[in-house]
Amino acid sequence: MKLAALLLFTSVLTTVLFAEQPRYMGDGQLQRPTGVREWIYLSSGMGMQYGNGAAGSEFTNVFAEPTAYREFVKTGKWPEGTMLAMEVRRGESKGSINKDGRFQTDLLALEVTVKDTKRFKADGWEYFAFGGKVQTAKGIGQQGGCNACHNKNAAVENTFGQFYPTILEIARAKGTVKKTAEE
Amino acid sequence: MKLAALLLFTSVLTTVLFAEQPRYMGDGQLQRPTGVREWIYLSSGMGMQYGNGAAGSEFTNVFAEPTAYREFVKTGKWPEGTMLAMEVRRGESKGSINKDGRFQTDLLALEVTVKDTKRFKADGWEYFAFGGKVQTAKGIGQQGGCNACHNKNAAVENTFGQFYPTILEIARAKGTVKKTAEE
Repeated sequence: MKLAALLLFTSVLTTVLFAEQPRYMGDGQLQRPTGVREWIYLSSGMGMQYGNGAAGSEFTNVFAEPTAYREFVKTGKWPEGTMLAMEVRRGESKGSINKDGRFQTDLLALEVTVKDTKRFKADGWEYFAFGGKVQTAKGIGQQGGCNACHNKNAAVENTFGQFYPTILEIARAKGTVKKTAEE
Repeated sequence: MKLAALLLFTSVLTTVLFAEQPRYMGDGQLQRPTGVREWIYLSSGMGMQYGNGAAGSEFTNVFAEPTAYREFVKTGKWPEGTMLAMEVRRGESKGSINKDGRFQTDLLALEVTVKDTKRFKADGWEYFAFGGKVQTAKGIGQQGGCNACHNKNAAVENTFGQFYPTILEIARAKGTVKKTAEE
């Protein structure tokens, strides 16, 4: 019992103290999140960015803020305040002993989505692109931009769970995959 | 001061309670680690596995056990007991709205390395391959196997830091990249 209480206490304390919440500027721009590389990894794609074409070699790494992820594991739903981030990294070949295939190098951009149904009334989610080392970014827009495609094609709420194998597995178990995505 | 003390207390408690240490069977086989997907992500490659050839499409995702990672961030060195794990996942194309590029699906294998200079006296590191859903694995061997190539070609101790951009950055800052790897 003592250990269980201690675990619970630590877990709550850790969640409260180390959660990274979205931080906005006075004009509503989102501040670039700082802890992404220690968030929970969802998956990577290669060459999936717009305009990459068949020869595209950029990697995209997707991460979830840990407190949002833990809630998703329990419920299959993303809680209010969820932040997901996608790194875009250069893919290179023929470095060191590598001959075939691709490995990751420079960070080119960081793209972030936030779920906040009060702040983003139309779609509930908003998207922000931090190119290079940019530290603040405007929302790309409600009822258009990223939301248009995410609304239509994402498998789990507004997120492309169909490309994140462990998220898809959880959402299937919880019954939160959109019917349109399972056809 | 109170907050700082609380943070320190929580940090130590979290480290002690949630660290995942290597667990061995009586015959020395390593048990498959269970928390890999919540470890710290290092990087992914595509088509870098042996024998993939130029058309290889398997992804490899590399993770570090969090307490080992935190020590690496401080020192640029992997502490005793470090576990790194590499997922091998199938890469697919033309699923959902995806036309070009590749995304990840099924887990094909999990490969783990452990640093333990007392247990693995010759090389200090040992490698274990958990194909499919295998739960225990024998060490692949000292003075040969994985160690032969890692000893010769890895940039940061026995790890291929040259393919993990954030690890390479830390190791460069701490001066722990092997000279042979920077030539």
